[in-house]
Amino acid sequence: MTTPLQRFIGADIDSLSKQYRRNFINCLSGFKSLCLCGTSSPEGSHNLSLISSVIHVGANPPLMAMLMRPATVQRDTVENIMQTGVFSLNHVHPDMVNQAHQASARYPSEVSEFDETGLTPVVYQGFSAPFVEESLLRIGLKFRERHLITTNATMLIVGEILVVETVGEAVSEDGFIDLELLNSLTVSGLDSYHCTRRIKRLSYAKPDQSLREI
Amino acid sequence: MTTPLQRFIGADIDSLSKQYRRNFINCLSGFKSLCLCGTSSPEGSHNLSLISSVIHVGANPPLMAMLMRPATVQRDTVENIMQTGVFSLNHVHPDMVNQAHQASARYPSEVSEFDETGLTPVVYQGFSAPFVEESLLRIGLKFRERHLITTNATMLIVGEILVVETVGEAVSEDGFIDLELLNSLTVSGLDSYHCTRRIKRLSYAKPDQSLREI
Repeated sequence: MTTPLQRFIGADIDSLSKQYRRNFINCLSGFKSLCLCGTSSPEGSHNLSLISSVIHVGANPPLMAMLMRPATVQRDTVENIMQTGVFSLNHVHPDMVNQAHQASARYPSEVSEFDETGLTPVVYQGFSAPFVEESLLRIGLKFRERHLITTNATMLIVGEILVVETVGEAVSEDGFIDLELLNSLTVSGLDSYHCTRRIKRLSYAKPDQSLREI
Repeated sequence: MTTPLQRFIGADIDSLSKQYRRNFINCLSGFKSLCLCGTSSPEGSHNLSLISSVIHVGANPPLMAMLMRPATVQRDTVENIMQTGVFSLNHVHPDMVNQAHQASARYPSEVSEFDETGLTPVVYQGFSAPFVEESLLRIGLKFRERHLITTNATMLIVGEILVVETVGEAVSEDGFIDLELLNSLTVSGLDSYHCTRRIKRLSYAKPDQSLREI
């Protein structure tokens, strides 16, 4: 049976209102990672921004990346990373989701989103980027590469993982981290927050071999 | 109260076994998008690969990106995109998750993952990349840019959205797509599949303005 799907083609996309298009296109990438990115200016001013574009890049060396909007929008975060060489990524759970969402407001550069949202910065000696104390999975990274997406002036920032802090009980014997135990959230579109329920883990897929639940 | 978190630092990460490290690092990026990427060779051989690194890049022009593993692993997909200029991304729901996972097995180039998994290719005239008929959200894209992540030889592929097919009732008046109505899945780590439950949608965040649920 062919599923009756509605078709939206290029010409239709072009004719959409700006707000409709933003919502629609933002949903297409599916459920997204939700992290708060902490940075510090060279003078020690803390900055926090909400990021839904974090991806895994590799395990050896341990790398992650995130896409930053054009320089006018997330300028403070990108400039801080370029100047200090480090940043933090912090998972978001339901008790801090309103504060995390509020961190996406366009505050002036001289304002710290920590002060405005009530989230608590934690700073360790030798690493200038603040972590978010309320978060249950915090990652410290150093800058490795950046790539300008020329089509729309966004920037991919690649970082190497230096430190990870999380709840010990969430880490399985095989290294798998139970993100549901941490209540890490996922986001769809611009503004919809979701918790998750695991269906299953599946064994490593090989040709001509049946999958089993692990 | 400071949450008692366990610390994993760089030296610890280096000492982990390969399998532990792969599981652990793959979980850090949080919940990930889950898509099947359909491509075709110039000769018409269909290829399907499972991708957990899709991100939103921009709404105008409508852009998405995905990270591909080194050329030795996902060579067919990258080569097909370079040669034909197009690819499809297809959301995954629970009834097709085992087939989607099986598509991640390393089949020889001459084998089609469609044949091996039982998923059904749909091809439209004028667009050579196959869509996945079982999927309830299918996106057709044309290649725009690629960027080599030099640190580990992965490749970011940026595509422009040409066509979207989904269930009409899932699209709200404001353009938001209810991915839960489509049962789109999210993945954590290498092999853990999750459905979601919406907590809330929040209004656009502005300084000095309270958030409300929408």
